[in-house]
Amino acid sequence: MPEPGAAANPSASPPPLDERNLDVLRQVGRHWRPVGAGPSALPVEPGLRLDARGVGRGRFGGFRVVPPTNGRPPQVEAPEAMATGGAWPRVRRIVLGPPLRSTAIASERLRKLIALPVLSADALSSVAYGPEALLAVLVLAGSDGLALSLPLAAAIVLLMITIGLSYRQTIRAYPNGGGSYIVASDNLGRVSGLAAAGGLMTDYVLTVAVSVAAGGAAVTSALPALAPAAVPIGLAVIAVLLFGNLRGVRQAGAAFAAPTYGFIVAIGLLVIVGLWHAAHNGFHAAAPSATAPVEPLGLLLVLRAFASGATAMTGIEAISNATPVFQRPAWRNARTTLSWMVAILVLLYAGTLMLAHLEGIVPRPGQTLLSQLAHASFGNGPLYAFTQAATAAILLLAANTAFSDCPRVLYLLARDLHAPRTFLRLGDRLAFNNGIVLVAASAAVILVAFGANTSALIPLYAVGVFLAFTLSQTGMVVHWWRRRGPHWRKSIAINAAGAAASAIVFAIATVTKFSEGAWLALVVVATVVVAGLRVRRYYLRVARAVALRPVASTGARALPAPEDAEAEEVPDAVRHLLVVPVASIDLASVRALAYAASLGQPVLAVHIAPTQEEAERLGHYWRAWGDHLPLEVVVSPYRAVVAPLIHYVEALHRQRPDLTVTVIVPELRVAHWWHRPLHSRTATRLRRALTPLPKIVVTTIPFHLAPAKGHRPTSRARDAGAGQVRSAATG
Amino acid sequence: MPEPGAAANPSASPPPLDERNLDVLRQVGRHWRPVGAGPSALPVEPGLRLDARGVGRGRFGGFRVVPPTNGRPPQVEAPEAMATGGAWPRVRRIVLGPPLRSTAIASERLRKLIALPVLSADALSSVAYGPEALLAVLVLAGSDGLALSLPLAAAIVLLMITIGLSYRQTIRAYPNGGGSYIVASDNLGRVSGLAAAGGLMTDYVLTVAVSVAAGGAAVTSALPALAPAAVPIGLAVIAVLLFGNLRGVRQAGAAFAAPTYGFIVAIGLLVIVGLWHAAHNGFHAAAPSATAPVEPLGLLLVLRAFASGATAMTGIEAISNATPVFQRPAWRNARTTLSWMVAILVLLYAGTLMLAHLEGIVPRPGQTLLSQLAHASFGNGPLYAFTQAATAAILLLAANTAFSDCPRVLYLLARDLHAPRTFLRLGDRLAFNNGIVLVAASAAVILVAFGANTSALIPLYAVGVFLAFTLSQTGMVVHWWRRRGPHWRKSIAINAAGAAASAIVFAIATVTKFSEGAWLALVVVATVVVAGLRVRRYYLRVARAVALRPVASTGARALPAPEDAEAEEVPDAVRHLLVVPVASIDLASVRALAYAASLGQPVLAVHIAPTQEEAERLGHYWRAWGDHLPLEVVVSPYRAVVAPLIHYVEALHRQRPDLTVTVIVPELRVAHWWHRPLHSRTATRLRRALTPLPKIVVTTIPFHLAPAKGHRPTSRARDAGAGQVRSAATG
Repeated sequence: MPEPGAAANPSASPPPLDERNLDVLRQVGRHWRPVGAGPSALPVEPGLRLDARGVGRGRFGGFRVVPPTNGRPPQVEAPEAMATGGAWPRVRRIVLGPPLRSTAIASERLRKLIALPVLSADALSSVAYGPEALLAVLVLAGSDGLALSLPLAAAIVLLMITIGLSYRQTIRAYPNGGGSYIVASDNLGRVSGLAAAGGLMTDYVLTVAVSVAAGGAAVTSALPALAPAAVPIGLAVIAVLLFGNLRGVRQAGAAFAAPTYGFIVAIGLLVIVGLWHAAHNGFHAAAPSATAPVEPLGLLLVLRAFASGATAMTGIEAISNATPVFQRPAWRNARTTLSWMVAILVLLYAGTLMLAHLEGIVPRPGQTLLSQLAHASFGNGPLYAFTQAATAAILLLAANTAFSDCPRVLYLLARDLHAPRTFLRLGDRLAFNNGIVLVAASAAVILVAFGANTSALIPLYAVGVFLAFTLSQTGMVVHWWRRRGPHWRKSIAINAAGAAASAIVFAIATVTKFSEGAWLALVVVATVVVAGLRVRRYYLRVARAVALRPVASTGARALPAPEDAEAEEVPDAVRHLLVVPVASIDLASVRALAYAASLGQPVLAVHIAPTQEEAERLGHYWRAWGDHLPLEVVVSPYRAVVAPLIHYVEALHRQRPDLTVTVIVPELRVAHWWHRPLHSRTATRLRRALTPLPKIVVTTIPFHLAPAKGHRPTSRARDAGAGQVRSAATG
Repeated sequence: MPEPGAAANPSASPPPLDERNLDVLRQVGRHWRPVGAGPSALPVEPGLRLDARGVGRGRFGGFRVVPPTNGRPPQVEAPEAMATGGAWPRVRRIVLGPPLRSTAIASERLRKLIALPVLSADALSSVAYGPEALLAVLVLAGSDGLALSLPLAAAIVLLMITIGLSYRQTIRAYPNGGGSYIVASDNLGRVSGLAAAGGLMTDYVLTVAVSVAAGGAAVTSALPALAPAAVPIGLAVIAVLLFGNLRGVRQAGAAFAAPTYGFIVAIGLLVIVGLWHAAHNGFHAAAPSATAPVEPLGLLLVLRAFASGATAMTGIEAISNATPVFQRPAWRNARTTLSWMVAILVLLYAGTLMLAHLEGIVPRPGQTLLSQLAHASFGNGPLYAFTQAATAAILLLAANTAFSDCPRVLYLLARDLHAPRTFLRLGDRLAFNNGIVLVAASAAVILVAFGANTSALIPLYAVGVFLAFTLSQTGMVVHWWRRRGPHWRKSIAINAAGAAASAIVFAIATVTKFSEGAWLALVVVATVVVAGLRVRRYYLRVARAVALRPVASTGARALPAPEDAEAEEVPDAVRHLLVVPVASIDLASVRALAYAASLGQPVLAVHIAPTQEEAERLGHYWRAWGDHLPLEVVVSPYRAVVAPLIHYVEALHRQRPDLTVTVIVPELRVAHWWHRPLHSRTATRLRRALTPLPKIVVTTIPFHLAPAKGHRPTSRARDAGAGQVRSAATG
């Protein structure tokens, strides 16, 4: 359960520039004349250090100055309490808690006794549904099928040990955390890495859905009255997990260790008591109840049962992902913990299936297999209740693990440009909010679509997991082959065995469960691969587009090519024309004109008049005002305003493509949203229509209308205003 | 009915400034220094007259130059084909036709023979539901009630004549069109005017709903199989009327005269044939069928019947609204036409009720009264079909009339600042699009809510109509009293009689139908009054806010008061600070910096860094680039970007409230909307958060990302870009 600190960069900031890029930067800089002199002397103190007590104290708390230390200049620091208004930040603060500083990222290292329960919840909790999934298929073939449960269990145990051994290799090779995505992309390339990530993400989302569904089943087995509310209860649990994770719950600690140990104790006891009972019977297997076969016992059925049972192995990779959270020597402690986890998993898994066999218990609706076994071992007493509660608790913990692991995979994808950058961002509470929300939403959709039914979800499950395992173990084979360090042959052998075993399970799961839902997992994986590649290509294209262009060493910069119109970077090369659309001569537009004129660049005012007469009238006012700036009136006999303005600006641009045309738009800002329908939205429409054009800059001069003060206008002021009333068409 | 040309101003442009406002303008202008000199010489030819063939020819057609005539300078004119892109303008052009020039507003004057059918469709079509509405109430009291049908008909005929005479006065007094809103506000004040307008608007919307429902009933009486589809058919008819009116159908002409004359002929024949039959029976009234009383015959029932029957008078005011469309002498022709209309209305109305009485026909479900009468007179032959078709046609025409009248009332309200300015605007086809859409939407909602049931709609109807009549006629009384010209006593007497009669019907309708729906009409009227007054107050407040401030004659302008921070209007008084938020040093931000630096004003770059380290790294790059502009780095340990930037800008503003701070935001513009999730929307969020602040101007420097060209990046370009990839956080 990797703490985010393990690898996440809280700043999501760009990696350092290399020397070549720095050189381009220097070249570009040499072509700028010094611009700090003359009128450009700053009229403000940018460090906000004017106020001795608090720096730049304002409505939302003041900025703080970080005092200068070892050569660093003093820096301004933004306070915690900053928000941009509205009720939402307050609500969020109450629900999620106050924001945390980036430095609060915990890098606590875990003892094995804590790491084991926290990291193995996902894997061990599979015992709650894995054996049942195996038997649920076998029982279709009646008692002949059920007779195969122990051999199949033995095969799966072998698989667990093989893959466990294989992951021990990964821990050694990737002491900084070797998730399937990292190992696969490192050794097999982007496509494999993306496929592994896609498999992992379906795995995580399904872990949430399956764990929540199975946890619900554990509860409804004990309290059947709750059964009809399974879906709403599941959604509520997902919501709680969502908010808990957005709050950034700590994942390590006694509270998180308890459910796992509780579950181990409960199932351990259950198996021991059950075997004790069985010993009294001389280990005679009871005949399974209700075993009329509905399908013939064929190879396909056996393989399907195997694939279903193998879902008990999900989460086995968690420790290898999280190696760096262990106390030092991390890799050695992680390996030991992994061995312990696999051992416990094998015991619980095999014990459960053994007991089911001995007691002749088969899956039946309304009551989980574990619940039936617990009834058989413990009756209806407190030990039964404890078993069900511990099962629900460890499943909840497993779901919670997926909630933090999936956003981490998204973070890694985003870091490698394969996913939207938004997944890089750490929220106020240092959690990957966007990834967490995505997991919650996907799991909720799946839970609803499959009616919180564990057995309907199982077929989707194995495919993603074993695809990720296969790619990761194959990656390890390549890893050892490339290095060929000490013992490389042995390492290759172990990982090759793991890869082969995983690949076989993947193939079996895909073939036998294709129409039951495995196709959906494959579609998701394919989507992740294709989208990941395209997203990366897009980001690289953007990066090329915004990268500074190297300057030829001869010095003189040519005019930019037409298709590269936005490439100029030197102030001297910028030629301005300021265009002010004037709807009427009022305070808002005169302010815009004053703003434009004060910049000391050529200004052109443009008026769109619906008729010749109106055009002449405005010209008359313009002269009365003093004709301070050139005015062009465009008559628009079709009454359109925005379109002619845009095309006029475009026509100016065609005249002089070298000019940077700044359109300075006065915009009335209303005090209340319900005033908006009372104004035409010319400024907004103008801005929206102008932004796609090259070398055209839009400046908005807001004119703020104050909220009503409750006094009635004096008749004099009313008259003064009335003449210009309908002319405020800019807002 | 009123062609828009009658009073609508196509430009919706402000009224001319008065001398005092012009004087303020001159005062303000005197404080501007000449700013056209020096660098401000325009680098473009604003008249776009560089190209001899077409002016400023571009993608969307070129601008045209209107040649100079009698002293006027040449002017640029926008062509028809301008649109701002997207598929919508093309679709609209196909559906609604090409835009029309403002000069295409028809001011055609109508002959009486054309004006009569066009303007009386609304009134005459009421014969299709008015008599039935009367009988439908009376029949509740059984044959005793039905016995009162002729006396009540006589009372309503008297009412028609009284109000008809009353409106003859209005025509004389308001030869330019005297709608209820104009007459009431002229003579009784704003509140009465708004109440009349509210009444009229409910009337128009209900005319559409009732006419469409009654037209549907006329059709389903003949073709009962269509009855279940009444609501969808009604909605389809409203949609056709909507698009027809948005296209700006001409309302005058033979095509519009035919339905009315057809209806007059059909109902006239029906009555004559019916009376002929009756004459054969010696005018013995047949006993009405199925007349078991369900309510006692009381005063309330009689009054209710009267109010329902009076709905036949809706539309009687149409001619007085539209006086200016008549051939000269307009008022005399209009009066003659009004008299003709009232005479025809009286004959058809009284004839219909007389015939129903003689033939013992009472309303029954599934078949309108007119349909029953037509069956009785014509059997099932082509004359019956003609009657039903003519009825449906005139009802459609009546609905169409309301479609053009209601937007006109909204236009008049908006002209007087009582309604949003958007209702002033003439669409591409010279129709008041926004009002038309509002009518269609309201009528559709009502039609669905009342299930296209005419009798359920009638109770809502009379209230609005007679409120408008009452206010209009009362206004006429005041009008004559104020003038006291020749014959003023007689005029007052006639209008007072009209007003009294209308007021009585209004009171009766309100009291007897209150719970059946009249309350809804009253709520709408009250809403129109309150909203109208508030909208006007708001517009006046806006007008005061944007009105130029008179300058004291002493000359020197004081610094604006703090609460009037946005009042300065003189370029010399504007002191600039340009702030450029820099996320990283890439082409987009260097362009923004170059833009800022090229304006020759003080520039401050601001960077929000998530960590100290990142802050130092950017400082290092800044120095590598040449440290051309002052840079302030704000460390944001809580990882927020937008909030610290905004508060930093605010802090600068607090330091120097006299500065105009322009925030120059580089913004990546994506080529396709589906690329948007791949960028953080910092620029948009920044702009949105900054605009509410005073004296802060936001400039957006768009950086356009080209769509993919389908070629794969070369490895060199890829490397050059990769280092800066995640730094393009501005887009």
